Amino acid sequence: MPAFVVVGRKVCTDGNFSLNDLTGSTGRLDVLLRCVNSAFMLSNDIRRDIDLYLVLMGEPDPPRTLRLCGSELKYLNPDERSTGALVKNALMKKPDEGWTMSTPGIYVAKMGLPGVLAELQGRRLVYLKEEGAPISDVVLSQNDIFVLGGKEDLSPEDEKTVSAWPVTLKISLGPKSLHADHCITVALNALDRL
Amino acid sequence: MPAFVVVGRKVCTDGNFSLNDLTGSTGRLDVLLRCVNSAFMLSNDIRRDIDLYLVLMGEPDPPRTLRLCGSELKYLNPDERSTGALVKNALMKKPDEGWTMSTPGIYVAKMGLPGVLAELQGRRLVYLKEEGAPISDVVLSQNDIFVLGGKEDLSPEDEKTVSAWPVTLKISLGPKSLHADHCITVALNALDRL
Repeated sequence: MPAFVVVGRKVCTDGNFSLNDLTGSTGRLDVLLRCVNSAFMLSNDIRRDIDLYLVLMGEPDPPRTLRLCGSELKYLNPDERSTGALVKNALMKKPDEGWTMSTPGIYVAKMGLPGVLAELQGRRLVYLKEEGAPISDVVLSQNDIFVLGGKEDLSPEDEKTVSAWPVTLKISLGPKSLHADHCITVALNALDRL
Repeated sequence: MPAFVVVGRKVCTDGNFSLNDLTGSTGRLDVLLRCVNSAFMLSNDIRRDIDLYLVLMGEPDPPRTLRLCGSELKYLNPDERSTGALVKNALMKKPDEGWTMSTPGIYVAKMGLPGVLAELQGRRLVYLKEEGAPISDVVLSQNDIFVLGGKEDLSPEDEKTVSAWPVTLKISLGPKSLHADHCITVALNALDRL
C-alpha cells in the first residue's frame, strides 16, 4: 500500500484559523488540503489503499503530523473548505504519546518527518523532486513511500533525513515544476497503470 | 495550444451564490474550480499556453460558457475560494453577442458545447471517458481539444455533438474513474512529457 508524506514547512500547528481564510494565515494549509483531495478522491469513491501523512512545521507548536488512513476515512468531501474543517478539528486536539484520533481515519501526533519515516521502515522511499530521474525510467511499486514538499521545498534537515534512508529514489514527474497535489495525482495514475 | 472543455451539467448560470457554499447550492461549481487550478497552476507560475472552457448548463439561465485564456489571465490563485470569486464576478455579467470580458483572461458567453466547438474547428477532439482506448496507446498532440464531463457525464445531446466531430478520439487515462480536475492534471503531464 503506497504512502504519501507531504511536508508543509510553514503550515500552522493549531486549529485557530478561519475556514474563510485557508491560504494566508494558515501558512498555506490550502496546498495540503488539495493533497488530501488528490490522494483519496475517485469519481464516486475514495481510495481505501492509501495512507497520507501531512507534516506541519509552522507556528505555534511544531512539529505536528496528521495521518489520514484511506481504509478508515469518513466524512471526507472533495472541496477545500470541508477538508479544512476536518483538519481544524484534528489540530484542536493536544496529542500525547503516539497517535490521537480526531475523526474516523484522521489521527494527529506530535512528530515530524523523522518520526513518520521511523514508522515506515523497510520500504523504498521515492523523493519527488524536479532534478530527479524521469518517472519513465523507473518502475514504481505499490509499497513505495512518496515524500514531497508542500508549498516549500524540504528543509535541509529533512533533506538529510531523506538522504539517510536506506533505499531512496529521486524522481521527477515531468519537465515542469508541479504543485504538490498535482504530483500526487500523477504518481497515483502511474501506480494505477502498473 | 491545447484546449480543455469541461461541461458542468448542473452548474449554476448566475453569480448569486455564497463563497462559503461552493458545493451545494452551485450545482457543484467546486468541481470546475478545481479544473481551473489543474489547467493553469504550476509551481510559482501559470500555464500560459492553455485555454479552458467551462460549459455551465444549470439553472437559472443556461447555457453559459466561461473561457479562461492562460495567456491573459490575471488575479488567479490556486485555492477554490478565490477562483470562486472570479467566477462569481464573471457570472454576474449578462453577456450579449459573443464573448464579454469579466476580469483579464476570463470571458463569458451565452453558448453551450456546440458553440464552443464551433470556435475550435479543424482540430482533433480527445474525449476523456472511462471506456476509451488506453492513453498509452495514443500519441497526444499539443493542438488537441480535450472534452470531459464535470461532476456528471455529458448529456446525450452533448455526446452526439462530440460523436459528430470530424476527428474524435475516445481515451481513458487509467483503470480508475478520476475526478475531472485529476483528468486534466494527468493529460497535461502527458503533454508535458511528449
